[in-house]
Amino acid sequence: MAFKPTEHQHVRYNPLKDEWILVSPHRCLRPWSGQTEQQPEDQPPDPNNPLRAGAVRSSGQKNPNYTSTYVFPNDFPALLERVPEPPPPDHPLFQSGPAKGTCRVMCFHPDSTMTIPLMSVEEIQAVVEEWINQMKELGRKYKWVQIFENKGAVMGCSNPHPHCQIWASSFLPNEPRVKERCQREYFENHGKAMLIDYLEQELEKKDRIVIQNSEWVALVPYWAAWPYETMLLPLKPTQRMTDLDKEQKRSLAEIMKLLNTKYDNLFNCSFPYSMGWHGAPTGPSAQPGDSPHWQLHGLYLPPLLRSATVKKFMVGYEMLAQPQRDLTPEQAAAKLRECDHLKHYKNK
Amino acid sequence: MAFKPTEHQHVRYNPLKDEWILVSPHRCLRPWSGQTEQQPEDQPPDPNNPLRAGAVRSSGQKNPNYTSTYVFPNDFPALLERVPEPPPPDHPLFQSGPAKGTCRVMCFHPDSTMTIPLMSVEEIQAVVEEWINQMKELGRKYKWVQIFENKGAVMGCSNPHPHCQIWASSFLPNEPRVKERCQREYFENHGKAMLIDYLEQELEKKDRIVIQNSEWVALVPYWAAWPYETMLLPLKPTQRMTDLDKEQKRSLAEIMKLLNTKYDNLFNCSFPYSMGWHGAPTGPSAQPGDSPHWQLHGLYLPPLLRSATVKKFMVGYEMLAQPQRDLTPEQAAAKLRECDHLKHYKNK
Ligand SMILES: O=P(O)(O)O[C@H]1O[C@H](CO)[C@@H](O)[C@H](O)[C@H]1O
Ligand SMILES: O=P(O)(O)O[C@H]1O[C@H](CO)[C@@H](O)[C@H](O)[C@H]1O
Repeated sequence: MAFKPTEHQHVRYNPLKDEWILVSPHRCLRPWSGQTEQQPEDQPPDPNNPLRAGAVRSSGQKNPNYTSTYVFPNDFPALLERVPEPPPPDHPLFQSGPAKGTCRVMCFHPDSTMTIPLMSVEEIQAVVEEWINQMKELGRKYKWVQIFENKGAVMGCSNPHPHCQIWASSFLPNEPRVKERCQREYFENHGKAMLIDYLEQELEKKDRIVIQNSEWVALVPYWAAWPYETMLLPLKPTQRMTDLDKEQKRSLAEIMKLLNTKYDNLFNCSFPYSMGWHGAPTGPSAQPGDSPHWQLHGLYLPPLLRSATVKKFMVGYEMLAQPQRDLTPEQAAAKLRECDHLKHYKNK
Repeated sequence: MAFKPTEHQHVRYNPLKDEWILVSPHRCLRPWSGQTEQQPEDQPPDPNNPLRAGAVRSSGQKNPNYTSTYVFPNDFPALLERVPEPPPPDHPLFQSGPAKGTCRVMCFHPDSTMTIPLMSVEEIQAVVEEWINQMKELGRKYKWVQIFENKGAVMGCSNPHPHCQIWASSFLPNEPRVKERCQREYFENHGKAMLIDYLEQELEKKDRIVIQNSEWVALVPYWAAWPYETMLLPLKPTQRMTDLDKEQKRSLAEIMKLLNTKYDNLFNCSFPYSMGWHGAPTGPSAQPGDSPHWQLHGLYLPPLLRSATVKKFMVGYEMLAQPQRDLTPEQAAAKLRECDHLKHYKNK
């Protein structure tokens, strides 16, 4: 029997994280009688929504009547700027280290019912511009600035108001630490940035491309773990978000609108996900152009598997052994390609 | 100001996985207005429960009227024994590899309303004995045999009938691959198994011990990521589950009952978790005593944070940067120590 990737189980290597994924396409037939999620649309608007323009937050501070994006300090930050440091470890198995940082909340829009695919390209571009401002300011001081959005109650998002978070830290967290190492090693061995080589190959192969415009490509990575995981890659070498030029910013806003419209149209719901950005580390000693092994990329990690209410659980085997997926990345990309990206289901 | 681990944020190192955890104890005060889970008890019993004694499963096969444990092949396995192999990779960024294996389901008890803390020690011992049989049989052929239990709808478990799964594979999955490396390096540097050194220290320090009996210790690891994560460690050097002696098996059944009674009493609910076992890799070339760097350990990874319905979401920051926790491992251990382990809340 000949090997068919859409039928026969295999493992795939994630070179960015030095990890493997188990792909079991024959398992798509498995029935599901387990937990179903609330329809994402059912998340009730919070009557005391602290993110809306003019709201008084739990800290007692009042939001201005903002009309575009708005950034303020997280009132319950996981990272504070001034804290005493732990003593140096006295045993290799009990190592702790200092952690300093700051956490901010960034509203995308004053309207609580808005989402990225429903916003105009100009409005999304304002989000991109503000991300860059934040990266610039926080990146001067902190080694790592993590921009991320938890969207939907199923992703632990407690407020449907369109917003993301920015957590900046004095340390390089696990995920970027591993990506730093893997991309550096690839660059040393091949003389080219891993994700630049990778995108070249993908543009030739075509079967994992979801959508492309003048400056960006959205694709399902060969090693995707989540069912409809995608990666946003710039066509030009770009180490950090702060390197984006005018064309790239505009084009990013455009592709975000298109990709998110596809996502929402896939299961006719406001598609939940965690998304975020990875680029070269920052901090006082970082310089433009110092990390040719890095290529900036955005990641969308959406949990839904079969419908608006059935998600993929990353549990027992995944937590203790290795991520496992049913539909192949190529099948996911094909489904997303088919989804309308111009007309959102709410506007039909 | 002096550093207090219960007040001041810091990072902790997980030497088994070469990863860090962000601990932000000051964040325990954060209010929660997001998604709440169903009470675990509300998971309705499946009227067509395919796991019960005498049921006809979707494969058309009929379960016997079993009275203790019962093992059968998973009807929708993620791993099959005979599948064509992918061709060798032709590019370093598009690597796939063969994956062979088998997936089994193991019922703990014929009664669908039973759970480990409600079972007798003898009944739990039958579970331990069957785990060992399975490890013996599958371990002869497969490099890795992952025993795991997804408990509760919130952990993707589609059937409340007490059961676990066993997935055996021709490859060493990510998690054990990293633990193999980290434990080997520690052994080379210190001449002793990491987890044996670790347990010695913990027994002296005492503040993360949850419960101990003649052969086993349950503790919250110094580097725990989930709020009430625990590790089960044997007091004697033990590389694999198949090395357990009579005393250790009996004592394991006892401590499982005690630990799970504590878990259920913590929030007065049938405590959801994913749990599983990690020991030295198996396969045709494995020999008893060949892996002195390994120490067998069980892991409980429970999602609940504050109550029976509020879980910790491992989402945006955790997926893209690094796990983050609020209450410290020492605080979690203290709470679990306080919970009654003799009388289950359902029997009060
Ligand atoms: O086989 P089950 O219990 O239906 O499936 C559950 O556990 C598996 C192993 O952790 C996961 O891959 C699935 O996502 C989850 O729903
Ligand atoms: O700050 P939020 O949105 O309330 O919190 C959410 O995102 C955080 C960052 O991913 C997580 O640590 C929390 O578990 C989650 O509930």
